[in-house]
Amino acid sequence: MKSFRKELWFNTSKRRELINITHEVQACLAESGIKEGLILVNAMHITASVFINDDEPGLHHDFEVWLEKLAPEKPYSQYQHNGFEDNADAHIKRTLMGREVVVAVTDGKMDFGPWEQIFYGEFDGKRRKRALVKIIGE
Amino acid sequence: MKSFRKELWFNTSKRRELINITHEVQACLAESGIKEGLILVNAMHITASVFINDDEPGLHHDFEVWLEKLAPEKPYSQYQHNGFEDNADAHIKRTLMGREVVVAVTDGKMDFGPWEQIFYGEFDGKRRKRALVKIIGE
Amino acid sequence: MKSFRKELWFNTSKRRELINITHEVQACLAESGIKEGLILVNAMHITASVFINDDEPGLHHDFEVWLEKLAPEKPYSQYQHNGFEDNADAHIKRTLMGREVVVAVTDGKMDFGPWEQIFYGEFDGKRRKRALVKIIGE
Repeated sequence: MKSFRKELWFNTSKRRELINITHEVQACLAESGIKEGLILVNAMHITASVFINDDEPGLHHDFEVWLEKLAPEKPYSQYQHNGFEDNADAHIKRTLMGREVVVAVTDGKMDFGPWEQIFYGEFDGKRRKRALVKIIGE
Repeated sequence: MKSFRKELWFNTSKRRELINITHEVQACLAESGIKEGLILVNAMHITASVFINDDEPGLHHDFEVWLEKLAPEKPYSQYQHNGFEDNADAHIKRTLMGREVVVAVTDGKMDFGPWEQIFYGEFDGKRRKRALVKIIGE
Repeated sequence: MKSFRKELWFNTSKRRELINITHEVQACLAESGIKEGLILVNAMHITASVFINDDEPGLHHDFEVWLEKLAPEKPYSQYQHNGFEDNADAHIKRTLMGREVVVAVTDGKMDFGPWEQIFYGEFDGKRRKRALVKIIGE
């Protein structure tokens, strides 16, 4: 069994951003030399997400509106977590979007449907944060 | 390490449907000959889900009502994604239900609790779509 | 390839509780002797969750309030599932929080960011229930 590990780093200019990391994960897979196995990609922070969906700006806007409706950032005082912090909403938004994805590797490629793209979802940004790519297989 | 791959295809008559695929995944596991490992089952479309829950019609009705409350299909104009499409709600519903499940394989069986059943959740159906079953192990 | 399996059992005194199981999962990993691979931790019940987030009581309170807002326990009659049972809300709460986590193993350790902690989320407790830890690798 082979294994491969790499961290992807981000520093968003806005509090919330969705970043397409499909090519970075593909590059990891190529570098690993693994032909059959599984890829795990997870946020290493509990106010960020890794998820698979469409790379379409309208949908990304819809996600922003929907997440703000279900877990609004403000008023900060609505959350007990926000004593010394202001990011309780980011913990909840990441819960809705998910921490991680697991992707099949077949014939050295990510085994994806036609529109699947991997995103890093930042919900409390403006600082250096990271996601983990771990690949196991042969 | 052994690996196994199969696509499961669906063509629902309704826009939204939940389909129990536990037996199909079990058949894949039997065909693979893998005794210890992990199974990944994921939707290959970004408007569909694979999830684990109860095979109980009342609960499935409750999921439908709940998903329509949190991410209503109509009016279509409430979503920016719905310029040429009408399925923004399906992208969000699938996010709530999840893209994938990972299941342990022990002694050649899916290592499940008493009520766990795997479902394909279709949220934008009436066309041919698919889920991926990938198994790795020994 | 090595594999390891262990069940973690719980019997909460309240209907809903969040239990930090990070140390139990670390102990499983040490016992397995696996240095590189993947850990799957999943609830074996469909009214419970395994998820990764912060071990901070204020945030856990915020999750409780948020889950009750999005999928309230009462009135029981609002859910069709609640004919002979009263736990439809728990099925939905677990869907929001997620069934499972997959964690990378690197150099014999869980490959975590600074604040990642694993929780068992009970949403229909006061009885014996369990989570599964499955580790594969080398």
